[in-house]
Amino acid sequence: MIKSRAAVAFAANQPLQIVEVDVEPPKAGEVLVRIVATGVCHTDAYTLSGEDSEGVFPCILGHEGGGIVEAVGEGVTSLAVGDHVIPLYTAECRTCKFCTSGKTNLCQAVRATQGKGLMPDGTSRFSYQGQPIYHYMGCSTFSEYTVLPEISLAKIPKEAPLDKVCLLGCGVTTGIGAVLNTAKVEEGATVAIFGLGGIGLAAVIGAKMAKASRIIAIDINPSKFDIAKQLGATDFVNPKEHSKPIQEVIVEMTDGGVDYSFECIGNVQLMRAALECCHKGWGESVIIGVAGAGQEISTRPFQLVTGRVWRGSAFGGVKGRTELPNYVEKAQKGEIPLDTFITHNMPLEQINEAFDLMHEGKSIRTVIHF
Amino acid sequence: MIKSRAAVAFAANQPLQIVEVDVEPPKAGEVLVRIVATGVCHTDAYTLSGEDSEGVFPCILGHEGGGIVEAVGEGVTSLAVGDHVIPLYTAECRTCKFCTSGKTNLCQAVRATQGKGLMPDGTSRFSYQGQPIYHYMGCSTFSEYTVLPEISLAKIPKEAPLDKVCLLGCGVTTGIGAVLNTAKVEEGATVAIFGLGGIGLAAVIGAKMAKASRIIAIDINPSKFDIAKQLGATDFVNPKEHSKPIQEVIVEMTDGGVDYSFECIGNVQLMRAALECCHKGWGESVIIGVAGAGQEISTRPFQLVTGRVWRGSAFGGVKGRTELPNYVEKAQKGEIPLDTFITHNMPLEQINEAFDLMHEGKSIRTVIHF
Repeated sequence: MIKSRAAVAFAANQPLQIVEVDVEPPKAGEVLVRIVATGVCHTDAYTLSGEDSEGVFPCILGHEGGGIVEAVGEGVTSLAVGDHVIPLYTAECRTCKFCTSGKTNLCQAVRATQGKGLMPDGTSRFSYQGQPIYHYMGCSTFSEYTVLPEISLAKIPKEAPLDKVCLLGCGVTTGIGAVLNTAKVEEGATVAIFGLGGIGLAAVIGAKMAKASRIIAIDINPSKFDIAKQLGATDFVNPKEHSKPIQEVIVEMTDGGVDYSFECIGNVQLMRAALECCHKGWGESVIIGVAGAGQEISTRPFQLVTGRVWRGSAFGGVKGRTELPNYVEKAQKGEIPLDTFITHNMPLEQINEAFDLMHEGKSIRTVIHF
Repeated sequence: MIKSRAAVAFAANQPLQIVEVDVEPPKAGEVLVRIVATGVCHTDAYTLSGEDSEGVFPCILGHEGGGIVEAVGEGVTSLAVGDHVIPLYTAECRTCKFCTSGKTNLCQAVRATQGKGLMPDGTSRFSYQGQPIYHYMGCSTFSEYTVLPEISLAKIPKEAPLDKVCLLGCGVTTGIGAVLNTAKVEEGATVAIFGLGGIGLAAVIGAKMAKASRIIAIDINPSKFDIAKQLGATDFVNPKEHSKPIQEVIVEMTDGGVDYSFECIGNVQLMRAALECCHKGWGESVIIGVAGAGQEISTRPFQLVTGRVWRGSAFGGVKGRTELPNYVEKAQKGEIPLDTFITHNMPLEQINEAFDLMHEGKSIRTVIHF
């Protein structure tokens, strides 16, 4: 049993508390990781708000981390002490029906227990004052030491700065992957991106990589437009400046609609707008944002019968162990400008400030350093 | 001006009346066709019911016909007198943005006027007692003589029996095309088909052609199961025999859901069920049925974020002038058993009986002979 500093969510809607938790050593197939840095993502805030139906407390949030292997459990063969890793909330076992389908990144090997805040054997490795603390998204990167299944860790080059590439553990990869893997945007295509948080800005990067001819950035916070422009966005729309539905505005701007759209917020009305701003005959809309529990999307079926396609993306369709090293490489080469995302850096002790900045729309990503 | 026997819909929700209408000769780019036979489709009944927001009266319904070119207007080059043709409610101009996109069959060249019941020049070729009668879906096959744009006619081999291949003008092609063109079902895939009318049964044929491993046929009228079985369906589900939602029944039958589903009715609740019975990670659902005006589909966005895809299909994604001849050829070779669809044959004078049989679920297709 080792001691670890951690930001614990003892209950929904309360500030995290920095305490020293106990961490059990890794069991068979598990790995102990020392987290060097972690991003703070809207999904952490969503679960903390109590709206996430899978949220269980007390737990250790965080799922966008970078770390170093400290110990491996029995039978672990793909990782060794000292390896640099990015935790994966979407595992990649390479043997389940999903992994072998060739059609999805949604490995289900550890999904059932992960959704309950537990390790695959149905128990937790964290405790505080003798009481168990739940894991979160299989990652719990808000703890300096955390335990993950071997299949939930992507090994990356040691040269990559963990306090930057940690962002590839969620938002940045999700946005880029949704464009490149899920939608497969082609050169010359027109793209609309709803919401310019970390995922939306990453989608702008993805669209730029795909050589989209027009990248329409949409946000009600115009202070986001500058960064979107730096990253490659060509058009900027603030729905507050228009009286008509935003899908109509975009259809008019683009002579019939865009080829691809991405909803990066989690607002079901915008998911509809994103679908309906797509071009008749071929436009495809990808839902990336996570909506509140019980909320539903709707549209007239005619929208689909006339050729629009509605799909979704989780972790950008990226298979973490196999593909994440390529993303790290792209970041190393400067093709993914991670620095642009990092608006704030702070120690673990200030993590609640990171949540405040995010809620106030003042940060893109805050990186927490252990 | 020539005289033509026609079944005219003088008003919504009234029986058609067999009268002699006047038909103007074809103008530039137009073709006069003598209809030899026509199917009666649910879409005709839908418009006759008054629920179709594009429905205008008086009009001549019918859009599933087979005929012979009687005269061509100025500038018509691809067709000559005596050619056998199938009218197309989805034209194929080969020059518009849609035709040249390579992504859709939804040619828009004549869409605007067609939706108003008029020829491309904004007028009608039909009149009765001096008053104009509207066209319907650009076809109006319930008239012995009808006028269509050249780009709305597929030329087919003269050997093909028009009183059978007329069904390729809508339902049969729509169902098969949705499976082969829109969904691109691959060998070994599992398929669920909601509704065993003409389109649903054609989808069964398409799934069989694609070598699907399981073809689950779903209908509340079990008398349809025999024909579905003949055509290749492997499993049969009557939702009335189950107390739980039908999507749950199918997910259980298939260890997680089907690879592809098709809604062939036009019921928005079933469209949802069809999406939700798809397999996590990759299942795709195709809406083929036409819902009532103003009705909406809905689901939780999580269904899409976890990898399901929602799309639609119109005329099976088939480009009529280019691809319909292949369908006729397949029918000639016996690969598309059109005879199975034709449960009734009758003269134009009995056309209202054909509607009754359809409403009572007693027919698959009635072919009207002129």
